[in-house]
Amino acid sequence: MTKTVSTPITMKLIEEAAEELKNWGKWGPEDHIGTLNYVSPEDVVRAASLVRTGKVFSLAIDFDNKGPQGGKTKFPPVGRFNPVHTMLRSGTDAYSGILDKRGIRSADDLVLLPLQAATHWDGLGHIFYKDYMWNGYDCREVSSFGAAKAGIEHVRDRMVGRGVLLDIARHMGVECLEDGFAITNEILDAACASQNVTVGRGDFLLVRTGQMGKQHKLGHWDGYPGGDAPGLAFETLYWLHEKQVAAVATDTWGVEVRPNDSDANQPWHWICIPIMGLTMGEIFFLDELAAACAADKTYDFMFVAPTLPITGAVGGPVNPMAIR
Amino acid sequence: MTKTVSTPITMKLIEEAAEELKNWGKWGPEDHIGTLNYVSPEDVVRAASLVRTGKVFSLAIDFDNKGPQGGKTKFPPVGRFNPVHTMLRSGTDAYSGILDKRGIRSADDLVLLPLQAATHWDGLGHIFYKDYMWNGYDCREVSSFGAAKAGIEHVRDRMVGRGVLLDIARHMGVECLEDGFAITNEILDAACASQNVTVGRGDFLLVRTGQMGKQHKLGHWDGYPGGDAPGLAFETLYWLHEKQVAAVATDTWGVEVRPNDSDANQPWHWICIPIMGLTMGEIFFLDELAAACAADKTYDFMFVAPTLPITGAVGGPVNPMAIR
Amino acid sequence: MTKTVSTPITMKLIEEAAEELKNWGKWGPEDHIGTLNYVSPEDVVRAASLVRTGKVFSLAIDFDNKGPQGGKTKFPPVGRFNPVHTMLRSGTDAYSGILDKRGIRSADDLVLLPLQAATHWDGLGHIFYKDYMWNGYDCREVSSFGAAKAGIEHVRDRMVGRGVLLDIARHMGVECLEDGFAITNEILDAACASQNVTVGRGDFLLVRTGQMGKQHKLGHWDGYPGGDAPGLAFETLYWLHEKQVAAVATDTWGVEVRPNDSDANQPWHWICIPIMGLTMGEIFFLDELAAACAADKTYDFMFVAPTLPITGAVGGPVNPMAIR
Amino acid sequence: MTKTVSTPITMKLIEEAAEELKNWGKWGPEDHIGTLNYVSPEDVVRAASLVRTGKVFSLAIDFDNKGPQGGKTKFPPVGRFNPVHTMLRSGTDAYSGILDKRGIRSADDLVLLPLQAATHWDGLGHIFYKDYMWNGYDCREVSSFGAAKAGIEHVRDRMVGRGVLLDIARHMGVECLEDGFAITNEILDAACASQNVTVGRGDFLLVRTGQMGKQHKLGHWDGYPGGDAPGLAFETLYWLHEKQVAAVATDTWGVEVRPNDSDANQPWHWICIPIMGLTMGEIFFLDELAAACAADKTYDFMFVAPTLPITGAVGGPVNPMAIR
Repeated sequence: MTKTVSTPITMKLIEEAAEELKNWGKWGPEDHIGTLNYVSPEDVVRAASLVRTGKVFSLAIDFDNKGPQGGKTKFPPVGRFNPVHTMLRSGTDAYSGILDKRGIRSADDLVLLPLQAATHWDGLGHIFYKDYMWNGYDCREVSSFGAAKAGIEHVRDRMVGRGVLLDIARHMGVECLEDGFAITNEILDAACASQNVTVGRGDFLLVRTGQMGKQHKLGHWDGYPGGDAPGLAFETLYWLHEKQVAAVATDTWGVEVRPNDSDANQPWHWICIPIMGLTMGEIFFLDELAAACAADKTYDFMFVAPTLPITGAVGGPVNPMAIR
Repeated sequence: MTKTVSTPITMKLIEEAAEELKNWGKWGPEDHIGTLNYVSPEDVVRAASLVRTGKVFSLAIDFDNKGPQGGKTKFPPVGRFNPVHTMLRSGTDAYSGILDKRGIRSADDLVLLPLQAATHWDGLGHIFYKDYMWNGYDCREVSSFGAAKAGIEHVRDRMVGRGVLLDIARHMGVECLEDGFAITNEILDAACASQNVTVGRGDFLLVRTGQMGKQHKLGHWDGYPGGDAPGLAFETLYWLHEKQVAAVATDTWGVEVRPNDSDANQPWHWICIPIMGLTMGEIFFLDELAAACAADKTYDFMFVAPTLPITGAVGGPVNPMAIR
Repeated sequence: MTKTVSTPITMKLIEEAAEELKNWGKWGPEDHIGTLNYVSPEDVVRAASLVRTGKVFSLAIDFDNKGPQGGKTKFPPVGRFNPVHTMLRSGTDAYSGILDKRGIRSADDLVLLPLQAATHWDGLGHIFYKDYMWNGYDCREVSSFGAAKAGIEHVRDRMVGRGVLLDIARHMGVECLEDGFAITNEILDAACASQNVTVGRGDFLLVRTGQMGKQHKLGHWDGYPGGDAPGLAFETLYWLHEKQVAAVATDTWGVEVRPNDSDANQPWHWICIPIMGLTMGEIFFLDELAAACAADKTYDFMFVAPTLPITGAVGGPVNPMAIR
Repeated sequence: MTKTVSTPITMKLIEEAAEELKNWGKWGPEDHIGTLNYVSPEDVVRAASLVRTGKVFSLAIDFDNKGPQGGKTKFPPVGRFNPVHTMLRSGTDAYSGILDKRGIRSADDLVLLPLQAATHWDGLGHIFYKDYMWNGYDCREVSSFGAAKAGIEHVRDRMVGRGVLLDIARHMGVECLEDGFAITNEILDAACASQNVTVGRGDFLLVRTGQMGKQHKLGHWDGYPGGDAPGLAFETLYWLHEKQVAAVATDTWGVEVRPNDSDANQPWHWICIPIMGLTMGEIFFLDELAAACAADKTYDFMFVAPTLPITGAVGGPVNPMAIR
């Protein structure tokens, strides 16, 4: 039976979890990918066998200036802004005839993209525990020059496997879980049971709270980025550790429940990334996938979510694919 | 038997091809994805069945400041530069203690990315034919505000299917084809035969020239971006049309052979994108995949290459997956 | 007596003004700077003689992420955002010891700056009249490659001369003029009289409405960018033409009164930039300067406002100096 | 008589200079501008009196993609690249008619600008001495969030005063001083004498080596950024300290002589910025100004060089004005 943890999440509980869940050195002293090591080639083969209908779901939101970073909020994530897309050359240039001296009429473009502005993976260099990062590396390995250890480029070919959706909102019979609602280990187990699905070693776990759908319905992102949200309880770290999942992602801004009810800010993050080496995904669009899963009562699928391999990055923008 | 076309590629030949290969309206007046329509759900299911070993290949180069846009060249692609990655917050900030008032030690980052700087899909808004773009849309649909038609966001869930590698360099017995070497329909057919693979409706075709490997061996990208290269002959447009491929990509900067031996600059592009609606991929890293294919003489695989869905974009940065 | 113009500003009135105020060719067929030609070296010498106390006023707002582009508004200027400042290397890197292998501890930084985001000059390529830009050049001279004519780099050494402040808010006895309040020629004349100052050939005219001070007092920029504002009436084009001013700037987002009461959007702009070649400045901080002018009843000064010479730019970020 | 210092510049000499030249606390514990405090309002009045002909010189190079950061060099300054200028809206959009629904035809643009890419001031947060920055502040005051102390915004109204050009190349009878040529105190004194000019308290000193002219003649910037150069000898720190200059700038990339002949990299920088609080300017275009000064044998002038007040910046892009 998985350990449960009562709130508030004190520093003592955080330090205890750091001791109990530490994966440092588990995959050698030079590891850069943490729990993604749980995925074996056999898992990839099995994952492919889950493709039954050929229907593909993109789990990315739009990468544009209407994104979540424009939402007003109590604690906006510092430095993030919505993607800025600008043209370097366009069809109006073409129409104007000014490109013809080049012998071809073409358009080009540019994006200014905070790596965690839209749908993304948190890299293992994103969060530090005291002076350490994943695998016990010195946190100074992530400097202004980027992440010398565990940069997002290391996961370039590792984001393929079996995906499992736990649709907690549907399981609880609501459109959207309340802000501050903590998804406990007990709820995760119950959802597995009610959905008739197991979560195991090397799986990519997607957890739906309904929050993104709520924002879509509202037509704005106010309150979303950095704000209160339903999400994973601190104790789920133990559950995820036990299950040996490869990665976990949600439809919220920050996976874990907010407010945190803790001495620390984002205590779940403190452990998940630097201590466990567990990659997490944020701002995943899960509503269409969830509807399809509910329709045929099948909650696992092939999952392929390769980020751009930006050298030394601590965030990985991604358009994740669920293939059923 | 597929039509052959002699060089030089005159305007007359280009206009003839425009007549003969035009797919405008084929998928309705509101289509945004062109030949990607050839991929059916059944194709996706069959593609998944090609996953035999669970080995995953990333076909992206590194997204960083050592990329091809730094190569000196005769005709550098205007406005493109290597990705600029910069940190918004770092582990040295963490170490310095200045983040502790936030209650969490985290790093964040930002990229400035010309969309065609590294491995990418050309969107269907990238090239114009006279005053038109794909499907006969007015080229002014691609303005400084981005592509109002056929933006890259429309392909968000369409880049999944059967991949086929034609390793022309290996087929010809060389490390790298010469600059200016035109891959003809005859060569494509011969490579299919010698590799014992077929190319058909809805396939994602990858063509290896060896040029990227040559640059890697040289240790620099001089001559690569916008320069001379081996590549597809103009007549291959007819071959690709006949085969009804979904998309085509190469390890070169621009897919088609350079110099072009033509009245136009990049004549193959003139037809491929705006007339046929055929998505093309550029700067794909194919060497490791090719070695694996050669080793077990199996040249088809599951291919998943989802670009970031940047609204209105004409280029799509991507980390393509070949899953065998 | 200067011509007056009644509202609404119909297309007929705009076309009439275009005929009557057109300066095309006045400074030759290759001119790039328009009315800045009015400033003579003698004017610069005389301007320097206005430096009496040695007190220097910066007329720029802060260039940062708290700027006006963050203000919510009915018609936000498309594509503009607040400056994004990010570090390439920092003192926390230094403290962390990671720079010591370079033999020097240094910081560096980067800005992403829409050129009209904060205090700026509108370049003569910023506004078009039908298919024309300043001096009758084809508007296609301003393409995605920048302004081939009248780029901001041409004014690099021309932004020096006599400055005159007309403090209309103070003249009218209010802290801030109302939104929609049109400053007419009559008011300009009356302000000159009450301030005991003349405006003439080659002068840089600064007009204070009080709007920026109002926003500062409110503590936010909502309503400011692209919104309603007090400002110059359409007829002031005739006044400025007659006076032969070199340039005009205000503390508002767009100089002219809003709403425009016109068939056109921003009718004053239609004439000012492309027809007259009159450079205008926007988002100038005038409150401290105005207080000093009021204190010693001296409203002219030396004015030096050199923009960065960004080749081909249509906007010129600037930190203008009023030296008294 | 000013102290002279023999090379090599050992750590002992650097530490000695740090003791002898330290200005920490001189202008109070909260100072942000260092030696710019030397400029008094009376100096500004006197500077204005130097405007004799009304001729204005821009000392900025072009801010564009042909700038010095494109030069190949042994030690390229990390993270700097040439300014990237891109249009947000253009005259070709206007010509294409797509803007007409907005009721106005206008263009807008954006720049991506490393703050020290072109002509610029080094801010006082740019260089650290051990764990300290200017005025003895902790170097961690300059974090990823920018400079909390001595940011460039503090000098917004302080870059006005008397400019003096010392044209060392002309003084030595050469077009350009050799790389590695150290300008000593003796040479500075001799140049003052031969030019019949004095340098004193509160002056802005410009030193011409001829290097930029050499690069212009060569037509490229290879060797310039981060490379070898003529420049100020270490001992000039004592001369500048004694003279109490407000700021110093040159036509080179880094003011001081390169190679440095020192245990440290850029030893002059170690002292100049963090210890003395002396602002320095780099990549100033001095050739036209120098020709004018030589022609009428007058080497002082009014100097106005206001940087954009980018909050928390450690570099200040600028278009400096010399007004004679």
